[in-house]
Amino acid sequence: MSQAEPARRPAGRPRGALLSRERILEAAFALSDERGGDFTLAALARTLGVRPQALHHYFATREELIAGMRGRLTLRIGEHGFDRRPWHEAILAWARAYRDTLGRHPGLIAALATLPVAGEPESMADYERIAAAFRRDGYPDHLVVPALVAVESFVIGSALDAATPPDNLRPTDPPRAPHLAAVEAAAREHAEREGRSVTETTFEFGLTALVAGLRRAEEG
Amino acid sequence: MSQAEPARRPAGRPRGALLSRERILEAAFALSDERGGDFTLAALARTLGVRPQALHHYFATREELIAGMRGRLTLRIGEHGFDRRPWHEAILAWARAYRDTLGRHPGLIAALATLPVAGEPESMADYERIAAAFRRDGYPDHLVVPALVAVESFVIGSALDAATPPDNLRPTDPPRAPHLAAVEAAAREHAEREGRSVTETTFEFGLTALVAGLRRAEEG
Repeated sequence: MSQAEPARRPAGRPRGALLSRERILEAAFALSDERGGDFTLAALARTLGVRPQALHHYFATREELIAGMRGRLTLRIGEHGFDRRPWHEAILAWARAYRDTLGRHPGLIAALATLPVAGEPESMADYERIAAAFRRDGYPDHLVVPALVAVESFVIGSALDAATPPDNLRPTDPPRAPHLAAVEAAAREHAEREGRSVTETTFEFGLTALVAGLRRAEEG
Repeated sequence: MSQAEPARRPAGRPRGALLSRERILEAAFALSDERGGDFTLAALARTLGVRPQALHHYFATREELIAGMRGRLTLRIGEHGFDRRPWHEAILAWARAYRDTLGRHPGLIAALATLPVAGEPESMADYERIAAAFRRDGYPDHLVVPALVAVESFVIGSALDAATPPDNLRPTDPPRAPHLAAVEAAAREHAEREGRSVTETTFEFGLTALVAGLRRAEEG
């Protein structure tokens, strides 16, 4: 919408030449941040001031576009040294960056999480690096995908959880939920003493516990 | 859409009397399963053949409606014996039922996961039962919410993951991702030998590892 380009164009003359993969992806992030991840290619074309056909040169389907957005986010998440650090250390840094990156686009999380990734080159390169680290460190082959998907599922759920109010589990009627009221207050006080948000301490606690559990599973 | 009631009604005479909380919730589940969780109250009113104002008697806002849907799902998930089984056993059964229930409504997961729950009575009763079990078993108060949110985040991410193709991490170009290709094949073969889907074995492995990690965190 904030593009300088006028929305009107001569009929039958798509402005494909003014488009680029980069510009379309940027507009798609802006649109999904504004209106959620359910947008159509037609809606995206409108915000770019082009005809839907002009987009098809770059992204034949909505799925291809979402895959492109996913690739962009994967690059933003970064590598985190899987090639030189033990998997269980690198994966902590990767999970934190992954959650932060998704957290900046909450409306996209469901679309990204349910997208088939097999054809998306950046995601494949990322998973390949991670799989290589697990194998190098002797993790059983048949458990690498389950371990990786477990961390990824936890990260995706945590990114959604981060979009809820920080006192989400604080009962509105404490006398009816005395145990919940007590543990919720204890978690908030603990986070305050540590100078962090409950969302942060909760994520770190869960991530550490999950990775510790995955390491233990490796041992047998 | 399949309601017998005609969409036309005398102007100015809302059909509130024919509505019920139950009927509205059913229509909301049907609508979100068909078109995703981003629907408006106005769209829901249309499928019920009533004016938006007629819904407001039952649900003043979209948030209240989603909270009602969440309450309904919580009842479907069930109690799983937190009052008599150790938390780390009951939570496995609860997590499986939670994921299965969410998995039946993939379009709703993001809306449900980001909803403030503090005012929703069924969810609060559920969390209260779980919090009571953790405390009874001696889990440190300040870690109960982090442990519970960790399992819930993992379940929500896993329910989204279950909506992806089962061979989602199988590289389309195996020579470019040899490690990923090897571990993905190993996971599939392992699941086949166990007579289960990769999605199932992956979820069970991650859940067991997470709960084991959370138990260990309790010990120190």
